[in-house]
Amino acid sequence: MSSTGGRPRSASIEDQRAKSSLVYKEDIFPGLRFEAELKALLALKQSKFQKVEVIETFFGRTLITDGKTQSAEFDEHAYHESLVHPAMLQVASQTPPRTIFIGGGGELATAREVLKYTCVERLVMVDLDETVVTICQEYLPEWGGSTTTDPRFELIIGDAHEYILNSSDKYDVIIMDISDPIEAGPGICLYTKEFYEIAKTKLTQHGVLVTQSGMAESIPTAMAYHTPPTHVDPSCFTPIHNTLSSAFDTVVPYTTHIPSFGCDWGYNLAYSGPPNAIFVNQLIEQYIQGAHDSLRFYDETTHCRMFALTKPLRMFMAQDDRIITKDDPIFMY
Amino acid sequence: MSSTGGRPRSASIEDQRAKSSLVYKEDIFPGLRFEAELKALLALKQSKFQKVEVIETFFGRTLITDGKTQSAEFDEHAYHESLVHPAMLQVASQTPPRTIFIGGGGELATAREVLKYTCVERLVMVDLDETVVTICQEYLPEWGGSTTTDPRFELIIGDAHEYILNSSDKYDVIIMDISDPIEAGPGICLYTKEFYEIAKTKLTQHGVLVTQSGMAESIPTAMAYHTPPTHVDPSCFTPIHNTLSSAFDTVVPYTTHIPSFGCDWGYNLAYSGPPNAIFVNQLIEQYIQGAHDSLRFYDETTHCRMFALTKPLRMFMAQDDRIITKDDPIFMY
Amino acid sequence: MSSTGGRPRSASIEDQRAKSSLVYKEDIFPGLRFEAELKALLALKQSKFQKVEVIETFFGRTLITDGKTQSAEFDEHAYHESLVHPAMLQVASQTPPRTIFIGGGGELATAREVLKYTCVERLVMVDLDETVVTICQEYLPEWGGSTTTDPRFELIIGDAHEYILNSSDKYDVIIMDISDPIEAGPGICLYTKEFYEIAKTKLTQHGVLVTQSGMAESIPTAMAYHTPPTHVDPSCFTPIHNTLSSAFDTVVPYTTHIPSFGCDWGYNLAYSGPPNAIFVNQLIEQYIQGAHDSLRFYDETTHCRMFALTKPLRMFMAQDDRIITKDDPIFMY
Amino acid sequence: MSSTGGRPRSASIEDQRAKSSLVYKEDIFPGLRFEAELKALLALKQSKFQKVEVIETFFGRTLITDGKTQSAEFDEHAYHESLVHPAMLQVASQTPPRTIFIGGGGELATAREVLKYTCVERLVMVDLDETVVTICQEYLPEWGGSTTTDPRFELIIGDAHEYILNSSDKYDVIIMDISDPIEAGPGICLYTKEFYEIAKTKLTQHGVLVTQSGMAESIPTAMAYHTPPTHVDPSCFTPIHNTLSSAFDTVVPYTTHIPSFGCDWGYNLAYSGPPNAIFVNQLIEQYIQGAHDSLRFYDETTHCRMFALTKPLRMFMAQDDRIITKDDPIFMY
Repeated sequence: MSSTGGRPRSASIEDQRAKSSLVYKEDIFPGLRFEAELKALLALKQSKFQKVEVIETFFGRTLITDGKTQSAEFDEHAYHESLVHPAMLQVASQTPPRTIFIGGGGELATAREVLKYTCVERLVMVDLDETVVTICQEYLPEWGGSTTTDPRFELIIGDAHEYILNSSDKYDVIIMDISDPIEAGPGICLYTKEFYEIAKTKLTQHGVLVTQSGMAESIPTAMAYHTPPTHVDPSCFTPIHNTLSSAFDTVVPYTTHIPSFGCDWGYNLAYSGPPNAIFVNQLIEQYIQGAHDSLRFYDETTHCRMFALTKPLRMFMAQDDRIITKDDPIFMY
Repeated sequence: MSSTGGRPRSASIEDQRAKSSLVYKEDIFPGLRFEAELKALLALKQSKFQKVEVIETFFGRTLITDGKTQSAEFDEHAYHESLVHPAMLQVASQTPPRTIFIGGGGELATAREVLKYTCVERLVMVDLDETVVTICQEYLPEWGGSTTTDPRFELIIGDAHEYILNSSDKYDVIIMDISDPIEAGPGICLYTKEFYEIAKTKLTQHGVLVTQSGMAESIPTAMAYHTPPTHVDPSCFTPIHNTLSSAFDTVVPYTTHIPSFGCDWGYNLAYSGPPNAIFVNQLIEQYIQGAHDSLRFYDETTHCRMFALTKPLRMFMAQDDRIITKDDPIFMY
Repeated sequence: MSSTGGRPRSASIEDQRAKSSLVYKEDIFPGLRFEAELKALLALKQSKFQKVEVIETFFGRTLITDGKTQSAEFDEHAYHESLVHPAMLQVASQTPPRTIFIGGGGELATAREVLKYTCVERLVMVDLDETVVTICQEYLPEWGGSTTTDPRFELIIGDAHEYILNSSDKYDVIIMDISDPIEAGPGICLYTKEFYEIAKTKLTQHGVLVTQSGMAESIPTAMAYHTPPTHVDPSCFTPIHNTLSSAFDTVVPYTTHIPSFGCDWGYNLAYSGPPNAIFVNQLIEQYIQGAHDSLRFYDETTHCRMFALTKPLRMFMAQDDRIITKDDPIFMY
Repeated sequence: MSSTGGRPRSASIEDQRAKSSLVYKEDIFPGLRFEAELKALLALKQSKFQKVEVIETFFGRTLITDGKTQSAEFDEHAYHESLVHPAMLQVASQTPPRTIFIGGGGELATAREVLKYTCVERLVMVDLDETVVTICQEYLPEWGGSTTTDPRFELIIGDAHEYILNSSDKYDVIIMDISDPIEAGPGICLYTKEFYEIAKTKLTQHGVLVTQSGMAESIPTAMAYHTPPTHVDPSCFTPIHNTLSSAFDTVVPYTTHIPSFGCDWGYNLAYSGPPNAIFVNQLIEQYIQGAHDSLRFYDETTHCRMFALTKPLRMFMAQDDRIITKDDPIFMY
């Protein structure tokens, strides 16, 4: 059937008639999900490795792979600035970071943040899935900005694990911007003790490795999962921390709330030698082109928030000593 | 973040990881809705009159206007055959139907059914919303089939009410394939006593008018709404029946289950003179090109099912005497 | 936090603030579900055999076992009258039905319908799950009515399969009111050729067996599942029909729309000898206490609707010859 | 229908059959909601002022009023400790807090936290809705603990606004634990400049007022709502901050992530005189019975996280100068 014999209607009537809706749902934990109005379904492809979608919701345009939000227009800068700058500035507090490696990073937004440092001379990024990179350039072009035309940037489609293993290059910063270690997912080996031990040998003297570390929701983690943690745990934040600690002298965990992920999100920063404090605002002015204006989320106060973990998360971490190895992996929900 | 360092995964793993979903929801009644996986969002446009979407769900490709399913790939033939053939064959039992009018019918599937009759010489269709017609031809081309190239078919973008009013033509069958009479919707005047009285004057001697009549769910209607029916009733099936009865000698209500509408759906067939039974199978063979092979839903047994209403629906109809007039309209949910 | 310092609010404000909701969802097909506002959660128990819930939704109070609606206040009479009366009247057209067996039937509503026949002398009901029977008597008391105090009624908690096997009694009507044959569900053996062959030997000369037969949605079944049917098919209506046909001379399939089940629902009626037509209204007056006033859904016209199947369902049935045996079972979704 | 003829099933089968679910949904923003499995519906009452529900979900037992989560078992300590201790310790850094007022606080958990201070001599709590208090004591008894038997505790059912206005008592700490300022909600006047000016006169020399201040989600607030803020803004965090600042010398905003609220949550701490830093861990040991063992969420590091706001939230606050007055109120979504 179809309409006929009518007249244009006003906006207020439109609302009144909203009897249907398109919705995007995503599980956060078993038994908890968020549900966002779907404003557009921009791309939906099955790559060789995963299902790739670009949708538009409350959070703006959003990249989804295998049903998990990877980053969203409204807070991708929070996710990416949090991933990149603490590691870069940690090195910068000792020596200018010049050679950088990114594992994953298909949206090119991690690369965008790295290239804000004028001291960077070479940035190598190795992502497995060309489809993701292509889709992001088409549908999320401003996330990569002028990355691909920057002569310092080198994009390799391939396996980050093999690349690191076989290359003799050393890096000032290695940034692991890869999918969560879910069962049978593509990136499990990149979260193991074995990988971190190899990666360590590819760092320069003051080099730093940082990895996104999945959800780090202190309260549900500590409360709902206070029963002995299992090998399919909703959170891998602590195991990743522990595993890095088995390979590096200093590992600093930090977290920030990413609304489009529906929870607090974790990262771990690893390097040799003792922990050292950094003066964030001063280093930003010194190293980043455009200084504070070029950052939308990160500064010294934000840094303080991220690195001050809540009591229940600290307590949960203190009693979990699991380590991820090739033979004894741990999977996220 | 993005994937890297992995390996292609098997289909069974795919399922295991289905932690998110795209969903289409539509209200059936207040307090009841269906929810279908959204496989694709093919078109989303705001026309001058309504919001028009083509999506793909469990029911296949589906046309939605203003948040209400209009017809869906898997059962559009059930909806359209039920609308067209009882009226056409009712006339055919007396005289071959030659001149036909469709009000609405943007998907062109109603026209497709009409043009199956070799005796039809002229088919005029008047739909208000060119956007609907265009979108259907692009995204649902097989619904219209070869309609638009059939020389007997005449498509007019305009107001069916005005067209009927101002034209001096007479028709053997008038088919009203328009949106439900929802408040402030475009087609309310096409469900009034005033319109039916005019339409009657545009019919030939044995002419028949049929109109889609909205949901006709006998049980919830009779049970949940046994309180005095109000002017915003979830069902207009009985008022439409009564209103037609105020203008025509014989009005025959019938219903059929349309899964993609989530309920039993109603139609009313109106003509002058006393009711007469028809021999459906024999008339199909006589009049329809390809005879039984060309129909997927409708035949004599299906006809019996449609015209035998359940006891609660008959009882509900018996106690509801509301009539729809311009000054005293009735709206559907 | 809590409220303070305020004033009572009006009902219209209430609506405006409805920012949350309690919802009941149930899958109808893979990829399609209905979603009803949850008005109350009256009971939730894990019995020895299944999860049993009584909730209140749009459909009124509703019994759910293992996540499938068993019957609902607004249309339980449609489900139960459709199950009981065609079989009872089929026998009554030959001889008064006196001894009746119900397998399952925990709500006691099937028994309620049977006991409306004054000619019935003995009604044996065997249900496996005492929890279901107890919960129904507490939360859905009017469904059973005065069943339990009727001296003709005999309730046995136990295994209907074993009971039928081991008893030497014969029955005029055997009514199978059991859960769908879902994988690993409790009642699979009650849908097999082996069971029907035994049951047949427990019927009197004019005896009839009727069984609920799961969803019988002609269109999605015929359209979406035109690929070769598999052993986990969403619908078992045809296999049940075929399996009965392998044991009985005459098997008559029929269906009716049950809104709370979200689809058309199937039954199969089986007996020895050739098919014979019955005069429904006349038999109702003759046999049923209170005659037409005591039935809310079923009469001759409703009967006609139920037994006239749509063309796609008939076509689908014609090309599916699967039979259910112990060694080669078929499971419903 | 019901089950029969079966056998008990294993837990793994249970999962496989989960084809239905009970769900609790709550809007976080327009266009975004969370959806949690409903494990139990423990209470559902309409009080004189609001709809009150106690449900059980992923977050444990949860109090809902008018469709908004008030507090949940898994993180109520995070909400309540964050509300109470910064204010109490701020006073304690100058003089032991002895007389405390709570506006709202129906769960009694705010009172529970206050009574952990041995120096407290009198705690007056005024909540409007006796139904909330009663329901919490029945269904969430451990949230109040031994509060009601503590001789220092005085519970008044009434209007906090009037009570404060008419009493001549002075307090060391005033804690506003009331519902968000939603339109037509009961507590709007408790968020106005007029109220804060009165409340200030009821504080002792070193007295502190703290109020829960609704969602304070920096990123969506700053990004999605960078258009000029309207009078029905999803967040009232900044207006509450500004309004308090119009009455007090020092107002310190702070936030923490409350998973069961689906976002970062805001508080504002107000007092006379210049800002002063406090030594949280030392004060906890000095004043709180059981010291660190009695707190599950709050300590010095947690305090640092809460008071270090992210850059986008600080930037958003800097450009929003709205003040809430009786004549010019601002409502939350």
